[in-house]
Amino acid sequence: MRMKLSDLGERRIIDKIIKMLRKCPQALLPLGDDAAAYELMDDLVLLIHTDMLVWKTDVPPAMSPYQVGRKLAVMNYSDIAAKGGKPVGILVSFALPSNTDMNTLLEIMRGIEDYSKSVGAYVLGGDLNESNEIIVSGTSIGLARKNEVISRFSAKPGDFVAVTGYFGRTGAGLKILLEGISVDESIKEPLVKSVLEPNARIKEGIALAKSGAVSASIDSSDGLAESLYELSAASDVGFIIFEEKLPIPREVVEFSKITKTDPLEYVFYGGEEYELVLTVRKGMWEIAEREVRSIGGSLFQIGHVIEERKILLKRRDGSIEEIKRKGYQHF
Amino acid sequence: MRMKLSDLGERRIIDKIIKMLRKCPQALLPLGDDAAAYELMDDLVLLIHTDMLVWKTDVPPAMSPYQVGRKLAVMNYSDIAAKGGKPVGILVSFALPSNTDMNTLLEIMRGIEDYSKSVGAYVLGGDLNESNEIIVSGTSIGLARKNEVISRFSAKPGDFVAVTGYFGRTGAGLKILLEGISVDESIKEPLVKSVLEPNARIKEGIALAKSGAVSASIDSSDGLAESLYELSAASDVGFIIFEEKLPIPREVVEFSKITKTDPLEYVFYGGEEYELVLTVRKGMWEIAEREVRSIGGSLFQIGHVIEERKILLKRRDGSIEEIKRKGYQHF
Repeated sequence: MRMKLSDLGERRIIDKIIKMLRKCPQALLPLGDDAAAYELMDDLVLLIHTDMLVWKTDVPPAMSPYQVGRKLAVMNYSDIAAKGGKPVGILVSFALPSNTDMNTLLEIMRGIEDYSKSVGAYVLGGDLNESNEIIVSGTSIGLARKNEVISRFSAKPGDFVAVTGYFGRTGAGLKILLEGISVDESIKEPLVKSVLEPNARIKEGIALAKSGAVSASIDSSDGLAESLYELSAASDVGFIIFEEKLPIPREVVEFSKITKTDPLEYVFYGGEEYELVLTVRKGMWEIAEREVRSIGGSLFQIGHVIEERKILLKRRDGSIEEIKRKGYQHF
Repeated sequence: MRMKLSDLGERRIIDKIIKMLRKCPQALLPLGDDAAAYELMDDLVLLIHTDMLVWKTDVPPAMSPYQVGRKLAVMNYSDIAAKGGKPVGILVSFALPSNTDMNTLLEIMRGIEDYSKSVGAYVLGGDLNESNEIIVSGTSIGLARKNEVISRFSAKPGDFVAVTGYFGRTGAGLKILLEGISVDESIKEPLVKSVLEPNARIKEGIALAKSGAVSASIDSSDGLAESLYELSAASDVGFIIFEEKLPIPREVVEFSKITKTDPLEYVFYGGEEYELVLTVRKGMWEIAEREVRSIGGSLFQIGHVIEERKILLKRRDGSIEEIKRKGYQHF
């Protein structure tokens, strides 16, 4: 029977692909983790990750070519950081229509180059091809010590659930950009900026890796809820998240009031946010927090790991409900 | 002034991009070489290369999805081998329309997996995206010892010019596929096969690197003439190639007779052949040849390096002419 990709959805497609591949003996992380971790020698591990940007679906209106390049770099370095690695470089492949403006290409590259510079990494190579639509594919590499590589699969009941920053801005910001909702500039500006100029938590990832306090980690590019589901499946545990502890920015709360929407929708399902979602070993919270603070970052405790494989939300009123899985899937 | 990519052409676009990038201190090869060479530690070097396949322009009729995947792997590992590296893995990003047949995707992956297995490498990761056209981007990684990494820039006058195999099959084979030319099966089969199932010279690249006899090397994916021009520019030397020494397969000679075409057109401008084009240090020919023979490969001496930056062809009748540069360029 012919099956189209759209009959299956991204997760099932990826499962089918992973099943047909051999396991690399040098790989420290399973296929499907944020990045591949290839053990080189003497405790040194190469982290490598690839992430593609399809202009038609991934570039919101108002995003400049410079911001597109910058975002490609953020997307790619974020997964290296989530595994505890220090990004060192990126390769970039372009598929472009021949009538593309040369400045568009140069601006995309400038965005990649500038963001790479800001994290101490370099553009190492690339490829140029002709196509009908603009597609940019990045491959980031990073380095880590073997004992610092953080998987998705070692969260244990009793560990704390933590995030490195606020959630909800991108979901609200994208709604403003796509639906042209008009709100006060003081609300609009940070929301829109979160979409156009996201940041990866590079320093936080490295600090957390060094702390030795993290049992599992993922980047939140597919949204907080989806990230929790992925961690849950990989570690075979569940989570209870406390509504009162969720770091929600003032402007997301305001925006929700104005638009009569639920702020938790933005918090759990926004996506394209590049915070780290992680679990901290029992008794090691202070160590993790101190390390992240020492590099100027923040660590928010939002819940803890439970045995039952459910993703629960404890509301302010004490009631408990399941957080639904409805993160964005391709196909 | 607005400049389109098609106003500039691939080489000038790449030059402009390279100019705006910082040079990585750990990079042993300049941007624009076949692969990036990143010095890790203790003499160990990471080779990394990215190559994209756009279905519309890069997949000839009659090529199966399995062969598409296999070719993507060949394209990507070939550049690692050209730098003297041992391929260890590949990452693959897909852009696919949602109505793509699941079997098409699985067959592409099977081609990548099988060819990777045949060279001792592994699929390490990937990414899946929705688009209007099928685009597959590969990133290969390999490892080498620092003193074995072969650049494009160290060819010296007096060195020999060598290739690892025959030239001309793909040009003729593609003509058969695109123009439906009917020739005897004994001629057609090897020509068409060279297009649908190319091979990278992995073992040859590693053997040549170990020999210490190679001063410069490139893979011939853009055609023999273009490869010579690239080596010439990087090393600031010229080449004289002897027509009588060019390894031209019998079936290419036959095909040229039947179609009243010039076999040298296929030899110099075919492209999508994955032989290595290299220069061997003066006095080290026997060493290089012995190493390549020891792994079951061949090394053909086709000319030598000259000081004047020209690419010359010495005809069988003793006359000398320039080999024109007309390799395929995107845009």
